[in-house]
Amino acid sequence: MRRPRVVIIGGGFGGLYAARAFARAAVDLTVVDRTNHHLFQPLLYQVATATLAPTDITAPIRWLLRKQRNARVLLADVTAIDLERREVSCDEGALTLAYDYLIVASGARHSYFGNAEWEKVAPGLKSIDDAIVVRHRFLLALERAEKATTDEERRRLLTFVIVGAGPTGVELAGMVPLITRQSLPDEFRSADTRRSRVILVEAGPRVLPTFSENLAEHARRDLVDMGVEVRTGTVVTGIERGAVHVGAERIETETVFWAAGNEASPLGRLLGAPLDRAGRVQVLPDLSVPGRPHVFVVGDLAQMHTNGAPVPGVAQAAMQSGVHAARNILRLIEGRSTTPFHYRNKGDLATIGRNRAIAQFPSFQMWGRPAWWFWLFLHVMYLAGFRNRLSVLIEWAYSYFTYQRGARLIAGKR
Amino acid sequence: MRRPRVVIIGGGFGGLYAARAFARAAVDLTVVDRTNHHLFQPLLYQVATATLAPTDITAPIRWLLRKQRNARVLLADVTAIDLERREVSCDEGALTLAYDYLIVASGARHSYFGNAEWEKVAPGLKSIDDAIVVRHRFLLALERAEKATTDEERRRLLTFVIVGAGPTGVELAGMVPLITRQSLPDEFRSADTRRSRVILVEAGPRVLPTFSENLAEHARRDLVDMGVEVRTGTVVTGIERGAVHVGAERIETETVFWAAGNEASPLGRLLGAPLDRAGRVQVLPDLSVPGRPHVFVVGDLAQMHTNGAPVPGVAQAAMQSGVHAARNILRLIEGRSTTPFHYRNKGDLATIGRNRAIAQFPSFQMWGRPAWWFWLFLHVMYLAGFRNRLSVLIEWAYSYFTYQRGARLIAGKR
Repeated sequence: MRRPRVVIIGGGFGGLYAARAFARAAVDLTVVDRTNHHLFQPLLYQVATATLAPTDITAPIRWLLRKQRNARVLLADVTAIDLERREVSCDEGALTLAYDYLIVASGARHSYFGNAEWEKVAPGLKSIDDAIVVRHRFLLALERAEKATTDEERRRLLTFVIVGAGPTGVELAGMVPLITRQSLPDEFRSADTRRSRVILVEAGPRVLPTFSENLAEHARRDLVDMGVEVRTGTVVTGIERGAVHVGAERIETETVFWAAGNEASPLGRLLGAPLDRAGRVQVLPDLSVPGRPHVFVVGDLAQMHTNGAPVPGVAQAAMQSGVHAARNILRLIEGRSTTPFHYRNKGDLATIGRNRAIAQFPSFQMWGRPAWWFWLFLHVMYLAGFRNRLSVLIEWAYSYFTYQRGARLIAGKR
Repeated sequence: MRRPRVVIIGGGFGGLYAARAFARAAVDLTVVDRTNHHLFQPLLYQVATATLAPTDITAPIRWLLRKQRNARVLLADVTAIDLERREVSCDEGALTLAYDYLIVASGARHSYFGNAEWEKVAPGLKSIDDAIVVRHRFLLALERAEKATTDEERRRLLTFVIVGAGPTGVELAGMVPLITRQSLPDEFRSADTRRSRVILVEAGPRVLPTFSENLAEHARRDLVDMGVEVRTGTVVTGIERGAVHVGAERIETETVFWAAGNEASPLGRLLGAPLDRAGRVQVLPDLSVPGRPHVFVVGDLAQMHTNGAPVPGVAQAAMQSGVHAARNILRLIEGRSTTPFHYRNKGDLATIGRNRAIAQFPSFQMWGRPAWWFWLFLHVMYLAGFRNRLSVLIEWAYSYFTYQRGARLIAGKR
């Protein structure tokens, strides 16, 4: 008898954890991704701010699955899905993958809420390529400030605007002053990088809306302490080369980073299922697509609920849903019925620079130095499986004790 | 009295060592480079083959010179040199640097001997961007082989041609079989990476022409042992997408790397001095430009001689000539006359894969395992000053004991 063929689209947290859940199963598994690597997204902001190298937080998907003999990994771009014939078409039809069961875990991109032209000026931060672009812009602004010929130009080049105060925006905003005030001042002769301005703009009433109000207030005070200008309740009305418009004010800047919104992968539209406003697929409680019991959607591409409450778009939700979809497929193969997904929130963390973080668990919360060390411990633990753990630890120890940054490379034309 | 202004163009080995030679001098020093980093070029082939990360072998020039208070570093593109007014013009005139003394150390690029169109298919290996392109092409060929639909396509994708058997070509050719035969076979299901072909093509009669004949023969035997097809006395007559022509033979391949020739930086042409065929400036014995006693040229951009013999284009020659030009400038400032440059050859090294290397010193030579360990020791020592030494050591130890490669990232559109 032919072994059931399972295709997983995406090698992020959802896809990778789904693939691993098939480890000992009698299936033929194919994982297809547009990139060759799994990305440890929670540390992307550290690449963007030149603390870690891109290779520290990425690992080839085929390397991660090398011991799983039932799995093959393909680098390919999914361009169509034929739900009737049960085929995934890649690279404009050059490659066709037949499936008996399909898991779509292609995630989300950042969204500019209908202002796609802002992307050129204000790059987002979702992929390793994004992080390299952000690192490039950040380091280049400092280099240009050093050779600026007027004070006005220098001021504009030393102004950094970050749009969106979710975890990514807060973490980015917290890193910039660490670098401009502590790592770099010795190295510049004309530009005083200590005088850099960091402005964090958030349309909502407070930073880190997914955290409790008092933890978010801790984070805000930490940011202000570090010199970040936090502007909540402030809507960005325009972004152009050289300036950001917030309400009636025009902030002169050459460097804007976008951390304000997500939009699901366009593959969701190929599934013939209802989507929510962010383009996410409204899945059934067992994570399958309505009317397509063999097709599952997990992670950031899925609009999932647990006990009526929406599941947040975080790494642990992607991992848990990936594993759950895989288990439901195994149940179907055994002729059993599927079970609904229940998200278990194990806690949320965010760092705000050196020795500062907040942590929120179902039954308690932490902030300040203990939360920061806990964050550090947890991220080093989670990088296990990744062989990069040791080099990340060394980079962090180096940065912590010397205030230096180890990955300040400007490369490529961007 | 105004302090003499010294401008150094280029932050490679020549420019960096020149800058450091001014450490305690009463001069105003400006180092200008098109990139933000000094590159440890001897290890570039390890980035190209996904063993080290780009940030392991680069360090910001301004970081390397941060404690030298008389030095400032500018990231800018030199676009003109006015020898009469003594001004260097950068970024199409946006920035002008006046000098009393000038050191030009802008190095060399690879050369295609009049076949510039080959570059698109056969990238060279001089900058960190080049190395990222080569890494990308190498890893992508393997990925494409895994999803190839015919044996013929798979064979073409698993054929790697390296043109030029100098140290770079030999080191690249030695790494590829290590990776395809030892690191990767476990991870691929359809492509048998063990069956990869590596062809090293050299127009001259033997590999490593700057080494003694018996050491070069050691290296050739090592390469053949490892499965590399070494074709000396073979001229490449054409390179096109999908194939390399050598004499009457057409080798089907998607991946060609160029390590066959150098051409000096175009800045040499701005100095009004005689150039040799490779575009190098024919400097006087004190390294100054004929008729321009305040302008010095060092490193790969200079055609230098010691006791009538040409000085090779290697890192140690660049370092020594950079230091010598700086000392001659200090002599001129003190009203003394300059001294001629004498190159001291401290020895040459080349590695051929794991546990294999050759080393040639004025009074003795080594090969095999002892030479390899010596190579390792020396390169780790030379990376001092670079804080990356520890992470490089860890990467190497990891690769050595596990046969894995730590930097297999495909990123960017190339």
